Amino acid sequence: MSAKVGIVMGSDSDLAVMSKAADVLEELGVEFEMTIISAHREPDVFFEYAKSAESKGWKVIIAGAGMAAHLPGMCAAIFPMPVIGVPMHTTSLGGRDSLYSIVQMPSGIPVATVAINGGANAGILAAKILATSDEALLGRLKAYSEKMKDQVVEKAKKLDEVGYKNYTKG
Amino acid sequence: MSAKVGIVMGSDSDLAVMSKAADVLEELGVEFEMTIISAHREPDVFFEYAKSAESKGWKVIIAGAGMAAHLPGMCAAIFPMPVIGVPMHTTSLGGRDSLYSIVQMPSGIPVATVAINGGANAGILAAKILATSDEALLGRLKAYSEKMKDQVVEKAKKLDEVGYKNYTKG
Amino acid sequence: MSAKVGIVMGSDSDLAVMSKAADVLEELGVEFEMTIISAHREPDVFFEYAKSAESKGWKVIIAGAGMAAHLPGMCAAIFPMPVIGVPMHTTSLGGRDSLYSIVQMPSGIPVATVAINGGANAGILAAKILATSDEALLGRLKAYSEKMKDQVVEKAKKLDEVGYKNYTKG
Amino acid sequence: MSAKVGIVMGSDSDLAVMSKAADVLEELGVEFEMTIISAHREPDVFFEYAKSAESKGWKVIIAGAGMAAHLPGMCAAIFPMPVIGVPMHTTSLGGRDSLYSIVQMPSGIPVATVAINGGANAGILAAKILATSDEALLGRLKAYSEKMKDQVVEKAKKLDEVGYKNYTKG
Amino acid sequence: MSAKVGIVMGSDSDLAVMSKAADVLEELGVEFEMTIISAHREPDVFFEYAKSAESKGWKVIIAGAGMAAHLPGMCAAIFPMPVIGVPMHTTSLGGRDSLYSIVQMPSGIPVATVAINGGANAGILAAKILATSDEALLGRLKAYSEKMKDQVVEKAKKLDEVGYKNYTKG
Amino acid sequence: MSAKVGIVMGSDSDLAVMSKAADVLEELGVEFEMTIISAHREPDVFFEYAKSAESKGWKVIIAGAGMAAHLPGMCAAIFPMPVIGVPMHTTSLGGRDSLYSIVQMPSGIPVATVAINGGANAGILAAKILATSDEALLGRLKAYSEKMKDQVVEKAKKLDEVGYKNYTKG
Amino acid sequence: MSAKVGIVMGSDSDLAVMSKAADVLEELGVEFEMTIISAHREPDVFFEYAKSAESKGWKVIIAGAGMAAHLPGMCAAIFPMPVIGVPMHTTSLGGRDSLYSIVQMPSGIPVATVAINGGANAGILAAKILATSDEALLGRLKAYSEKMKDQVVEKAKKLDEVGYKNYTKG
Amino acid sequence: MSAKVGIVMGSDSDLAVMSKAADVLEELGVEFEMTIISAHREPDVFFEYAKSAESKGWKVIIAGAGMAAHLPGMCAAIFPMPVIGVPMHTTSLGGRDSLYSIVQMPSGIPVATVAINGGANAGILAAKILATSDEALLGRLKAYSEKMKDQVVEKAKKLDEVGYKNYTKG
Repeated sequence: MSAKVGIVMGSDSDLAVMSKAADVLEELGVEFEMTIISAHREPDVFFEYAKSAESKGWKVIIAGAGMAAHLPGMCAAIFPMPVIGVPMHTTSLGGRDSLYSIVQMPSGIPVATVAINGGANAGILAAKILATSDEALLGRLKAYSEKMKDQVVEKAKKLDEVGYKNYTKG
Repeated sequence: MSAKVGIVMGSDSDLAVMSKAADVLEELGVEFEMTIISAHREPDVFFEYAKSAESKGWKVIIAGAGMAAHLPGMCAAIFPMPVIGVPMHTTSLGGRDSLYSIVQMPSGIPVATVAINGGANAGILAAKILATSDEALLGRLKAYSEKMKDQVVEKAKKLDEVGYKNYTKG
Repeated sequence: MSAKVGIVMGSDSDLAVMSKAADVLEELGVEFEMTIISAHREPDVFFEYAKSAESKGWKVIIAGAGMAAHLPGMCAAIFPMPVIGVPMHTTSLGGRDSLYSIVQMPSGIPVATVAINGGANAGILAAKILATSDEALLGRLKAYSEKMKDQVVEKAKKLDEVGYKNYTKG
Repeated sequence: MSAKVGIVMGSDSDLAVMSKAADVLEELGVEFEMTIISAHREPDVFFEYAKSAESKGWKVIIAGAGMAAHLPGMCAAIFPMPVIGVPMHTTSLGGRDSLYSIVQMPSGIPVATVAINGGANAGILAAKILATSDEALLGRLKAYSEKMKDQVVEKAKKLDEVGYKNYTKG
Repeated sequence: MSAKVGIVMGSDSDLAVMSKAADVLEELGVEFEMTIISAHREPDVFFEYAKSAESKGWKVIIAGAGMAAHLPGMCAAIFPMPVIGVPMHTTSLGGRDSLYSIVQMPSGIPVATVAINGGANAGILAAKILATSDEALLGRLKAYSEKMKDQVVEKAKKLDEVGYKNYTKG
Repeated sequence: MSAKVGIVMGSDSDLAVMSKAADVLEELGVEFEMTIISAHREPDVFFEYAKSAESKGWKVIIAGAGMAAHLPGMCAAIFPMPVIGVPMHTTSLGGRDSLYSIVQMPSGIPVATVAINGGANAGILAAKILATSDEALLGRLKAYSEKMKDQVVEKAKKLDEVGYKNYTKG
Repeated sequence: MSAKVGIVMGSDSDLAVMSKAADVLEELGVEFEMTIISAHREPDVFFEYAKSAESKGWKVIIAGAGMAAHLPGMCAAIFPMPVIGVPMHTTSLGGRDSLYSIVQMPSGIPVATVAINGGANAGILAAKILATSDEALLGRLKAYSEKMKDQVVEKAKKLDEVGYKNYTKG
Repeated sequence: MSAKVGIVMGSDSDLAVMSKAADVLEELGVEFEMTIISAHREPDVFFEYAKSAESKGWKVIIAGAGMAAHLPGMCAAIFPMPVIGVPMHTTSLGGRDSLYSIVQMPSGIPVATVAINGGANAGILAAKILATSDEALLGRLKAYSEKMKDQVVEKAKKLDEVGYKNYTKG
């Protein structure tokens, strides 16, 4: 099976966050390709990447970037299917610069933006998009949700049993 | 053909913005259903709405809300396919409250967030999601992009011909 | 005596802050029940929780959550008596996301919001609410205030005695 | 029946917002007293007001103020039962100054803060607090919630009947 | 004489601000070319524009854009000489989105950013850049500064003569 | 009697706000001189102004400016006695730019900052500073405070008499 | 000689910052008294403090507080001479809450606000205020400024001598 | 060859950031002079510095400063050629204070602002300005850009080879 999702980031400093998208996709059985491309430092490479994405069979691009984060928006300007943007946390502005640069797209060119450093949610959202036409994947997503729910139930149970004063000790 | 997209808003004061999503979907030939549901004022109605969405055949929900905007996130907690969130502009905080309430979702429950008041982009994003498995729709989306491009080209041409001092007069 | 206050949080990462509410209530002799429920990961569990709260005899719910914090507002949509919201500090936005998601509730559904990470104040506020019909508790609250006052007086006295240059040494 | 709720504001420019609290309380059958007191311009009057509130039989104070809004917090420093703070919208900072000055209270002295310009919600919250020991009032609050729900249902019905393109015309 | 400066904006809604750059350059005797190009709606046109700028003899590009403003940064990624960015005021975020999207460029790709809506200053800055190798232009810039100074002196004189109570009347 | 206070502003667009400082000083019987000087457009005039202020007998300078507001801080760098800064409201950033540019002075060079558009308070603060060595002025300030107090008392009385529903009508 | 300046802070956690004010005053030979008073936890103590300040011969109060910082503004409501406010840095909002609560005072009640954590500048400003009627103190302030200048000159000299690559080593 | 660029900073705490500008200029073969001058602590030294810059043959000044950062704007008020401003990161406001104080210059006096802590970009921008009349320097800038591009290509290659799970290990 060939990749359905492209994961791209502007710098390898974004890798820790973007790896979470990859981990989720792997867990959900969705093929992806991951690379590093700077829209600012290598615009030609970037253009080629974005233009060829459709012909490679990709259905979704997940693009992560920080500061004046142009990568997701420029992907969305070229790739005709959904682009998911992941705003990176930044030291000075806490990621507001990344968030605004990604989410405040002008009319006509949406970027599906997730939370600051929201790598895992980007992966889940990509899977949800593909699940609109893939019943099996939808089933795996539902199972994934159940697992998340169980984790919370487990924690509530533990809290109930040991009491809040002992929770972190136990 | 039955609806593929549900459009829901928390108040009829959101209608001007959300209508743009509907207009775009209509132009792109995507069936949708639109309603008003307040997750805060009628939680039971809301839950029923979100739970029944999948069985109605919907593939995407577009949810718009303002201030402490919980509607998109609560939809995403229940509906297993993509939820697009539209943060409404607000007088006091300019829509930052709506934006943060929608985009800053915890890990596991993404909302595909568009710009503040980005109703049109929400419609386009919904169409792009559906276009991942609908070649004809993808073709209409490309044509839509061409039209947008032509509009800018037209404006550049006019600016070149009349000069910037006469542009707004002409 | 049965619980009058429910304490609920969206994640066990909120426990350190929410424990302060519990500590205060314990000190003031107010019975409470504490649990962890994610409105996003287990909406059904959440709905059941919020709906059954009144019949359990609770008079106040203290709900803490971070980021796109929907838990307090959704509690307030269902539970007919006061809901106190505790916005959690967040790394990227310093808790503004939590604060706005909790305090900016639309007309009709108030959440009594305290400071970011204000767990102790949430406990005190719950007690103050119950004290509107409980003279004994009101008395304990007044004693609690006296104790806080004494602590400041003590510090001022120490500063006066040792001087500001030796205060932190002593 | 004597007043249970004191409504106080720092300036008569806050009256439009604070009147909504009064309107709600009137509708819910809760007696209140309303006045204007500037903690900054007449601190003696203010102190007397806050100190005498308990002996007048009040159970809740609703305090509204703008900019460096000290009135709610200073009420909470003196009055032993709940104080609800209403941050006023401000031209320059959109009400963030009012909000932060009211909600960010130090440990020990909570102010139950509602949304910027949230006068109506302050009234509802006061009623909810009193309803913790007043079954009849709780019943009126539930009816009030039903009415709010019906209004949304009505709007949804109209939207469904006339369509979004005709909604604002009809 | 051929153009030394390219002025480009993402939308004709930016024209009022960008015209001030043109007016200043005209006054200072600097040739320029002005056009409208959307990096998002017509990325191919944009790339061609940015790549050909050097060969047209341009020394500076002034790029104005609003919201998720990628135009200036993408120009800077391609054009090897200075790019001046003009962040547009926006209704919801006051232009912070535009400002952050333009000024927070990653290391290696600077954009010389001016104030929000700072069209005139962009023109002056472009002239100052060219004046580093053009004595005559530097002279004209100094004369321009003198004129600005004289205007303030004139106002101070008027204030002194008529008094502040009559200033706006006279 | 010669002037004790210099009032300076960066532009005649600041005059409406700065006139309130003048009005207050006039009411309190404090002599002042008012002028317009742009630290940016006429740095030489500005330096001369700031340097000669002490020898003219001034004890306080009130400086108002907007945006990147350098005038107050540069006055404080030269004039050895108190400089009061008045941050002007700005369209895009609401005056945060002015406020931060004035209040966030580095260690060693304080500017006594008042609220955004706080012209009247700047005048009162200047009078308070002079009143530290002028008993008569202190007396007039106390009378001024009494007058302000009376105005609030009057409003409270009216509210009590006519009721909040008739307040704005009467 | 008796104290001319009162230094007050809301909590001993503010002591590190407020000590810098004391250090500066000591260096400049200005007598002061320092204490800790919480306007929220001990309003009676606070009122007594503020009311008696004038009779103790104080000419300036320096008040530091964090979060919903009411101490400076409430001092200014009672003490008729200048009150200098020092906003404390806060973890969640970086001190914006403290800054807005202090600087955004309503018309009539100014607080002379310095930078976040600006303890030293508060001390200098107090001295500058007293220097408006104390030539000797003014002389010491000028010497203090000379010393600050010399420190920068020294650093510039070192940078010139060792070069920027060795500056931090040497 | 004599210096073309002056680098100035308000404090030696800015040296780490400003050294990056120097490093870039050195790498690009551009002569510069670097010093420390506080516009606030030594205004006379500053004025002399800014006034003599043109006669020393400088074409660009790079000025870095933090908090109420007046140095870049005051340089631009005096020096007739481009001034590049570098806003320093600050603990409390994350550098927003520095950024607004530098970028929000009034009409007539532009400062070419780069990102918060953007020392390296300031150096590159200075070189780009000089490259408008220096073909050899332009060539070196293009080579510098190629090198940056190669670094990203290298990283992408490594990611492709080792996979994202091993990237940081390898």
